[in-house]
Amino acid sequence: MVDRKGLKNRGRSRADVDDRRKAVSDLTETKLDAIGDYSFDPETASKNIENMIGVTQVPLGFAGPIFIRGDYAGGPFLVPMATTEGALVASVSRGMSVISESGGARTKVLSDAMTRAPVFRTEGIDHSVKVINWICENPEAIDDAVSATTKHGRLLTIEPFPNGRNLFLRFSYDTGDAMGMNMATIATEAVCRLIENETGAVMISVSGNMCTDKKPAAINAMNGRGKTVLAEAIIPGALVESKLHTTAASVTETNIRKNLIGSAMAGSMGFNAHAANMAAAVYIATGQDPAHVVEASLCMTTCEDVEGDLYIAIRMPAVEVGTVGGGTRLPSQSEALEIMGCKGDGKARKFAEIVAATVLAGELSTLAAQAAGQLGSAHKELGR
Amino acid sequence: MVDRKGLKNRGRSRADVDDRRKAVSDLTETKLDAIGDYSFDPETASKNIENMIGVTQVPLGFAGPIFIRGDYAGGPFLVPMATTEGALVASVSRGMSVISESGGARTKVLSDAMTRAPVFRTEGIDHSVKVINWICENPEAIDDAVSATTKHGRLLTIEPFPNGRNLFLRFSYDTGDAMGMNMATIATEAVCRLIENETGAVMISVSGNMCTDKKPAAINAMNGRGKTVLAEAIIPGALVESKLHTTAASVTETNIRKNLIGSAMAGSMGFNAHAANMAAAVYIATGQDPAHVVEASLCMTTCEDVEGDLYIAIRMPAVEVGTVGGGTRLPSQSEALEIMGCKGDGKARKFAEIVAATVLAGELSTLAAQAAGQLGSAHKELGR
Amino acid sequence: MVDRKGLKNRGRSRADVDDRRKAVSDLTETKLDAIGDYSFDPETASKNIENMIGVTQVPLGFAGPIFIRGDYAGGPFLVPMATTEGALVASVSRGMSVISESGGARTKVLSDAMTRAPVFRTEGIDHSVKVINWICENPEAIDDAVSATTKHGRLLTIEPFPNGRNLFLRFSYDTGDAMGMNMATIATEAVCRLIENETGAVMISVSGNMCTDKKPAAINAMNGRGKTVLAEAIIPGALVESKLHTTAASVTETNIRKNLIGSAMAGSMGFNAHAANMAAAVYIATGQDPAHVVEASLCMTTCEDVEGDLYIAIRMPAVEVGTVGGGTRLPSQSEALEIMGCKGDGKARKFAEIVAATVLAGELSTLAAQAAGQLGSAHKELGR
Amino acid sequence: MVDRKGLKNRGRSRADVDDRRKAVSDLTETKLDAIGDYSFDPETASKNIENMIGVTQVPLGFAGPIFIRGDYAGGPFLVPMATTEGALVASVSRGMSVISESGGARTKVLSDAMTRAPVFRTEGIDHSVKVINWICENPEAIDDAVSATTKHGRLLTIEPFPNGRNLFLRFSYDTGDAMGMNMATIATEAVCRLIENETGAVMISVSGNMCTDKKPAAINAMNGRGKTVLAEAIIPGALVESKLHTTAASVTETNIRKNLIGSAMAGSMGFNAHAANMAAAVYIATGQDPAHVVEASLCMTTCEDVEGDLYIAIRMPAVEVGTVGGGTRLPSQSEALEIMGCKGDGKARKFAEIVAATVLAGELSTLAAQAAGQLGSAHKELGR
Repeated sequence: MVDRKGLKNRGRSRADVDDRRKAVSDLTETKLDAIGDYSFDPETASKNIENMIGVTQVPLGFAGPIFIRGDYAGGPFLVPMATTEGALVASVSRGMSVISESGGARTKVLSDAMTRAPVFRTEGIDHSVKVINWICENPEAIDDAVSATTKHGRLLTIEPFPNGRNLFLRFSYDTGDAMGMNMATIATEAVCRLIENETGAVMISVSGNMCTDKKPAAINAMNGRGKTVLAEAIIPGALVESKLHTTAASVTETNIRKNLIGSAMAGSMGFNAHAANMAAAVYIATGQDPAHVVEASLCMTTCEDVEGDLYIAIRMPAVEVGTVGGGTRLPSQSEALEIMGCKGDGKARKFAEIVAATVLAGELSTLAAQAAGQLGSAHKELGR
Repeated sequence: MVDRKGLKNRGRSRADVDDRRKAVSDLTETKLDAIGDYSFDPETASKNIENMIGVTQVPLGFAGPIFIRGDYAGGPFLVPMATTEGALVASVSRGMSVISESGGARTKVLSDAMTRAPVFRTEGIDHSVKVINWICENPEAIDDAVSATTKHGRLLTIEPFPNGRNLFLRFSYDTGDAMGMNMATIATEAVCRLIENETGAVMISVSGNMCTDKKPAAINAMNGRGKTVLAEAIIPGALVESKLHTTAASVTETNIRKNLIGSAMAGSMGFNAHAANMAAAVYIATGQDPAHVVEASLCMTTCEDVEGDLYIAIRMPAVEVGTVGGGTRLPSQSEALEIMGCKGDGKARKFAEIVAATVLAGELSTLAAQAAGQLGSAHKELGR
Repeated sequence: MVDRKGLKNRGRSRADVDDRRKAVSDLTETKLDAIGDYSFDPETASKNIENMIGVTQVPLGFAGPIFIRGDYAGGPFLVPMATTEGALVASVSRGMSVISESGGARTKVLSDAMTRAPVFRTEGIDHSVKVINWICENPEAIDDAVSATTKHGRLLTIEPFPNGRNLFLRFSYDTGDAMGMNMATIATEAVCRLIENETGAVMISVSGNMCTDKKPAAINAMNGRGKTVLAEAIIPGALVESKLHTTAASVTETNIRKNLIGSAMAGSMGFNAHAANMAAAVYIATGQDPAHVVEASLCMTTCEDVEGDLYIAIRMPAVEVGTVGGGTRLPSQSEALEIMGCKGDGKARKFAEIVAATVLAGELSTLAAQAAGQLGSAHKELGR
Repeated sequence: MVDRKGLKNRGRSRADVDDRRKAVSDLTETKLDAIGDYSFDPETASKNIENMIGVTQVPLGFAGPIFIRGDYAGGPFLVPMATTEGALVASVSRGMSVISESGGARTKVLSDAMTRAPVFRTEGIDHSVKVINWICENPEAIDDAVSATTKHGRLLTIEPFPNGRNLFLRFSYDTGDAMGMNMATIATEAVCRLIENETGAVMISVSGNMCTDKKPAAINAMNGRGKTVLAEAIIPGALVESKLHTTAASVTETNIRKNLIGSAMAGSMGFNAHAANMAAAVYIATGQDPAHVVEASLCMTTCEDVEGDLYIAIRMPAVEVGTVGGGTRLPSQSEALEIMGCKGDGKARKFAEIVAATVLAGELSTLAAQAAGQLGSAHKELGR
């Protein structure tokens, strides 16, 4: 007979975890040995999970080295990638090798701000305008409300979008080296309570979806969320031929027909080959929020045949990453960040540039492989 | 002095993995103990990763039980979730508890097909039409080409989209219990070679982005990719009040202002609160492709106040999951599937229904929390 | 003192129109002489307008001739365009001249169906499925309901989209040579009443916006509405230089950076330069519904440099036009259709091809002008 | 035998117009009497059209009066509408009557700026950043370049969007009472020439489609183009019943299922019933650019049942209209503007508010009709 008590256990010691796992195991008549084989004190994860029964072990490889010439990331980097998709690490590594041999990837963080956009119910146009005016006239009261909730966060702007009896306010914050969504949420809620008191508008949700968090959205593609990052490389024609077995013209044609025209015809917001793959693997390896892969998929890739050389670039409007807080505290995730010298304060933009360079390498490799007609066979050899 | 030889090691034994990890450790002057602590034979992952140096340990909890009344999933289920986002598992569990107490979640798989859409270069309109006609007139030759590559896959339809000198063909396959993208790619490439030979059209890429894989796209939101799944529940008004501390009317209002109006104003394709969170946690736990979280984010959530009771539903047009192949082979991922009775053949639709029910629970809990103005404080207690 | 009685006049004789116009004139203290100068019996317009006080005189020019090699339109055509935008007719004519000299425009109607998509309220998933099943099992009853409302229309398909307690049904009709939206609406409403009676689902609106009428929508861009039309031309390099003062490479580059990358970055559904301009001018001239310019703007333009020659093509997924009914009955509009041999039965597809060829010419001319850096100066000479 | 000489006639006198029309008539063997019946000197239209052969007479009616309480438009207005869609004027008038009886429509112009966004080819990231920096550091030189081209226009902002070797710059202008696109184009081109000289970037097109002109685009829906206008009204429950034969609850339900959920499922950018209809009719009547109906279709309509009363509102992010220049100079168009007191300087925002109020009335009437299940029958009586 199954004892379900363990399911209700809310403790965070290793014994509690074992007790819970045993209860799950008993109830479902399964062996959970691999799940139970973890190497850290569950207390470490107390802010990361509830009802813990163990871990998922995601295979971790490294790609690279890739040589990066960024404003924050400089030099060669090995990039840890956690994935179960065969051929991905090998493909990215190939791209990195070619980029490095070509002088490296130029990367740049264009903007950096985390957003949260509550929605209020107002009485209509005039009430909404009154709220907007109050906000314009009371920057200090608002800053005080923010400061009371966070030491690291700083409010940058509030952008209003009134619509009928709805008023959306898009708050942008400098959140330092944290990804910052939680910080932004708490600070925004404090300001919202102030606005409610002063104006009579009613906060319906601290997140009114114009943030936009974990949904594909044009507002992020255009105005950015987290870090907006650019990356580019120029691959000499000779290298395109010798290493990628194709030509700058072919890769460019593939990019136009697939990533531009194909995505346009599909009604897609992602004009890339598989940016989400690289983002997912690096995000999981480093304790980022994997649901932010959605925003990473907004990447646009462009290629040009510049007199036989291949120019390739990406624009990632929303790289939402941090090097402190969240999942970065966990042991294997922390080690992964350390491999890149990206653990802790002052490292978030450097890390964002490495993410972009990794995506660039993956795009290059896949586009070149498709240009050369090799996708299917590459998967046949290495794939699942 | 650092010995970089290990970086070049391509082996798949535990010794090879250790050697590589040591090389990375030496080169980057880091300790990689947690990464090195894994419990399976690396050969098991040989089709899942290259350059393996260990694992990422993602904390695993369980949500539930949730009672499901699906066409494939019936009864109470515990759902494993791998995440580093504090409060997520607790929030989903809360939703599941309320749903179960209300009689459970009704789920339904509406359609089930994996797609791949190559792009061809043709000479223009007439050539494209000629190719389309050839396809219409040669179903047997095409089926033969597919059959030569797969035992499990079956071609369902080919939908043509000609545009100038581009011809996109969207292939749809029944891929059984595999997620099926690889199967679809290989079969499609075989058909493409046949088309090239017979018509002179040139395959530019086996994936022309009308598939659409790992990018948000209207074509998936409308026509589906993988499994299109519906889920719904009716929560009695008394339960909404006692357990969720709000009302059907408030949750419905929150959903309209946030998930419908807010998403619309953001130019979003995701009309939900945070479907990607639940999908990411379950996908990572069970060895699914985490980049498919992008498509999961296309979820639409609707709520209605039905005489004081709360009707809540989701539509997920693209749940791309499998219960065989890919990451499902790995030990902890396999165990996670077993917890739900979803390992192996004949389980993929059941699993897709559980995914949808889990998303439903997460949507319910978050909408209710926001309706009750609790988001910020919930995170303050449990969050990072 | 103003006599407002005329405002209430609901008559349709010329005297009634004059009486109403005088009342408007008196009330607003304006002279309405130009408005009052119209040349047809208002009874002719009795199905086109209410409260008629006269006409708007839109200047009408012609572009062309353009040589067309379509499935329905063959030979040279003069195309009437009603516009107030200086330089438009001249620019389109320039494009037509170059296309004609290059052997003409190839055009093709890919598909032809008018859609209407009611939304029903159901009790949830199971009820929606029941309705869908009823539809599948009762094609004859449905056809009978359609036939009772129209002689010319024929129901082609009904595509169901259930979502929570909403059920959308997208009806597609062959509507002959009428644009057909009204016919589709009336037939659909009849079927909806039948569905209501048989299934208990409640029709909330005969148009549930998945039609989609007069709003930009991915469903039309992908699946088409009205006629989906392709057009293309190949302009020899020598002609690109001598007549357009640029090169195939420059036009192609302009198209990529502007129509593909620029539109993608703007979150646009229209990947063209100004298709709406041509559509608007031809639609107004011929009595089409000018709000359907919205769908015309979904056009995608592609260009390629084919060994120095310029290949240019457009895809218009939703050309919603007719050659009978609606505004085509009016004298000047009817004459405009006759100029192209497109008045009356059996002419709608021919007309759609001419529309597409005209858009192609306008795209060519503007892209070439922009490539040559001439847009601003062209407007300075001819423009407003 | 046909004399084609007239086709080549480029003159602008009435005799030239007649000669050309005769040539068209002869060549196409058609009678063009209605087209030839126009009442103004063709010289008046010399900046509006080329190859003029006469006019299209579009039936003109009036809707209203509607009582407006705007910042710029105050009092009752009759609104001229040029259309061939039966039932449209009657339907809008019905909505206006109900709104007026309820105290009128509140309207507000939220923002007002015309945009033009050239695309440059740069050498990559660093070059693009250099151009952006040059722009930031040289506001005076840029203003001088603008001033040299226009007396009425004033540059407000330049927003940069770099992407690979593409640099998009979105210029926003105050263009006074002109719609202003031409003014913006010419001024922007002057600045572009300056940027080219100073930075070596190459202007590929003065319009890089991030403007975005005459294509549906999220950038306009979010950030606005031309005038962003709000309008709202509250209809007492008693009036909803007596005049519209439905209830606030039913209209609200219709709006949610159709305009919010239906549009979302269609992948639409227009969350309204038929805003394009009203915009098209008013734009044609008043000499606006009818291709701007595309942007008008980005309208979002919201409804709420406020204790039995109906709150209805619209948000039109891009009302691109003017009261000077363009087609407003023509006689019947000028008269139409005068009916509303909107001819000439200082009237553009007033006119934009009237456009929005008219759209509001049309939305109200149609939603109410659909709520009451009357759409089909209304068209049967009045429609084509």
